[in-house]
Amino acid sequence: MLSVAEAAARTRALVRRLPAEEVALDDAAGRILAADVVATRSLPGVDNSAMDGFAARCAELPATLPVVAHVPAGLVPDPLPPGSAARIMTGAPLPEGADTVVMFEDARDAGETVELPPSREGANIRRMGEDIAAGERALDAGTRLGWGEIALAAALGCARVAVTRRPVVAIVATGDELVDIGTVPGPGQVVDSTAHALAAHIAEVGGVARHLGIARDREEDVIALVEQALGCDLVLTTGGVSAGDHDHVRSALAAAGVQLDFWKVAMKPGKPLAAGRAGHVPVFALPGNPVSSLVAFELFVRPALLTMLGAAGVDRPRAPVILPDGYKKPPGRAHYLRAWVVRDGDRLVAALHPQQGSHMLTSVVGIDALVEIEAGGGDIEPGGTATAILLRAV
Amino acid sequence: MLSVAEAAARTRALVRRLPAEEVALDDAAGRILAADVVATRSLPGVDNSAMDGFAARCAELPATLPVVAHVPAGLVPDPLPPGSAARIMTGAPLPEGADTVVMFEDARDAGETVELPPSREGANIRRMGEDIAAGERALDAGTRLGWGEIALAAALGCARVAVTRRPVVAIVATGDELVDIGTVPGPGQVVDSTAHALAAHIAEVGGVARHLGIARDREEDVIALVEQALGCDLVLTTGGVSAGDHDHVRSALAAAGVQLDFWKVAMKPGKPLAAGRAGHVPVFALPGNPVSSLVAFELFVRPALLTMLGAAGVDRPRAPVILPDGYKKPPGRAHYLRAWVVRDGDRLVAALHPQQGSHMLTSVVGIDALVEIEAGGGDIEPGGTATAILLRAV
Repeated sequence: MLSVAEAAARTRALVRRLPAEEVALDDAAGRILAADVVATRSLPGVDNSAMDGFAARCAELPATLPVVAHVPAGLVPDPLPPGSAARIMTGAPLPEGADTVVMFEDARDAGETVELPPSREGANIRRMGEDIAAGERALDAGTRLGWGEIALAAALGCARVAVTRRPVVAIVATGDELVDIGTVPGPGQVVDSTAHALAAHIAEVGGVARHLGIARDREEDVIALVEQALGCDLVLTTGGVSAGDHDHVRSALAAAGVQLDFWKVAMKPGKPLAAGRAGHVPVFALPGNPVSSLVAFELFVRPALLTMLGAAGVDRPRAPVILPDGYKKPPGRAHYLRAWVVRDGDRLVAALHPQQGSHMLTSVVGIDALVEIEAGGGDIEPGGTATAILLRAV
Repeated sequence: MLSVAEAAARTRALVRRLPAEEVALDDAAGRILAADVVATRSLPGVDNSAMDGFAARCAELPATLPVVAHVPAGLVPDPLPPGSAARIMTGAPLPEGADTVVMFEDARDAGETVELPPSREGANIRRMGEDIAAGERALDAGTRLGWGEIALAAALGCARVAVTRRPVVAIVATGDELVDIGTVPGPGQVVDSTAHALAAHIAEVGGVARHLGIARDREEDVIALVEQALGCDLVLTTGGVSAGDHDHVRSALAAAGVQLDFWKVAMKPGKPLAAGRAGHVPVFALPGNPVSSLVAFELFVRPALLTMLGAAGVDRPRAPVILPDGYKKPPGRAHYLRAWVVRDGDRLVAALHPQQGSHMLTSVVGIDALVEIEAGGGDIEPGGTATAILLRAV
């Protein structure tokens, strides 16, 4: 059986980066930059005052000087005559000739004149280009645009930015037992919950989910929906990929032209995972157990989507965590345990969800991390350490 | 001057929770639940098989038994006659009478009969209600709906959920030096970048931004836009709130009926921050320096919005970080330093952005944390520890 690391590497090879599109900066939050943003202007654009105060020549200080000008922000002032000072506001351009700004609190303001203490050259002055100079790279391709990146892009006048097109992800659920969310399940039936959770996760990563519906456990039903799905950028199926009597997904994928690259990964939950490609369209056949499917998405599909988006970082951060109760693990497969994580000083402590069954949906609620116990790893003693894949800041 | 903690406490008192609205579950990702979700059905809905295998009575094992039925997922099987076994698929309801499932790998399948080893009662059986029982609380009010929460809500058939209405946040920029993003700034002019960054941050928290435009540095201009803004759920102004000659925002807010609760907070960047309320509408007058404004938003407005949303957690996680180069800090104000954080085993190491000026927009790009040096704290020696407010998982 393939290891998680091998499966992850093969997964990356299945996908390629999508093309770029231009969007308005105000629609770009959360999107991935498709090209570097290079500064077409310098910030600040001119030398300006960092304080409300008085602009002067430091060689003339200390002195009581006539206040010959008033410089508000947004206007270019006249040059400052020698032997004078200018009242200046924060952000206002420094008058030519001035080389220092004394803040209000340090000046004795008498209206027409002002008494200024000694100062140093450049005090309280922001230099043109000290934030960024025209021609410098401001943002790297692959950056996800958060509020900080948008602040800089806006200041540089980037009203539109090139971002990678959102991958459209088809979801094909399979299973005779599945009903849609609006139907009350009969005995033995279950709601197709995984499709809704996958759609939420796809959107969070930056894709667009297309739920194509539920195929029944007949090969021709699965083929029909998969053929539709192959018009999207990436295809996910759920269920029908184990070795049960009604597991037609692999044969249906083959019939629809999907070349499967691997099947079965040495992990728990999530073993019966298959992945391949039809032309340029990557296809992931996720397991039917909801938690297996969601863990497989997290480990393989999320990085695949981020690779398609050209994101600079595709992996979640990992951190060592203490397992106060330890964990008993048979050899063979890597385990991915749903956990809450709390901080204890420098250390992170993971509380494993008490129910780790792959059908236990309560085990994916409110969790902070997946704790990874590697395939080669054995039991963890109480108080021992494992690696957590952090799903959010803790 | 007010401390950051006092200002934060006063800020919370300015806001109140918004009403709920019902949305489709597929539109609810990222929203905050306004009411508990209580399970109206049990999960699993019936006892079912955790494996592809054979259902039998464990008291009869080991034995070679006739295979009298085939139980696929989604159908309710007939009771299992004594002295027989049923072929059963993962997730399929357990036939009445059966009390154990032997997985395929452990059975010797001869078609019409099967040889089964000893097993134990309940082996490979998922019990009705073991994930969640009807009547139990599934999700708490105040929970942000991520993919895990959506999985559980979907399984419970919650096609619609009650979430807190999104706060509509008005942004009123002020400043004679500001131009909109589509205009090339003249000498001394700057793009109103803060409004774009605030809009992105508002959306990330779960609100809806309304940028009302740029008011010039005249009281009547500011009043006119603030009066429009007071129709929203929360109002942000930027700039004009210092003690400069053109700082009309506080007087304009008063003229528009805003009762200011505080002005100036002992922090850097961000000191000239004012907050108050007009009727039930909280108003924050943020500083004009972009970084000051964005840090003040992070520390005060983000928690205020989350409180309006009824979110269970309004504060970012905090963690101790090492400052390899230390930090020289004069007493008086708390400092909030933009930093990249990398993990070194259990410890987090913060690299401070080299330029901490409140006009340095490059200092908010790609950062992981704000490192807080408390007002009472002094210099941090190289290798010393400070507290980081984590903006994302590291």
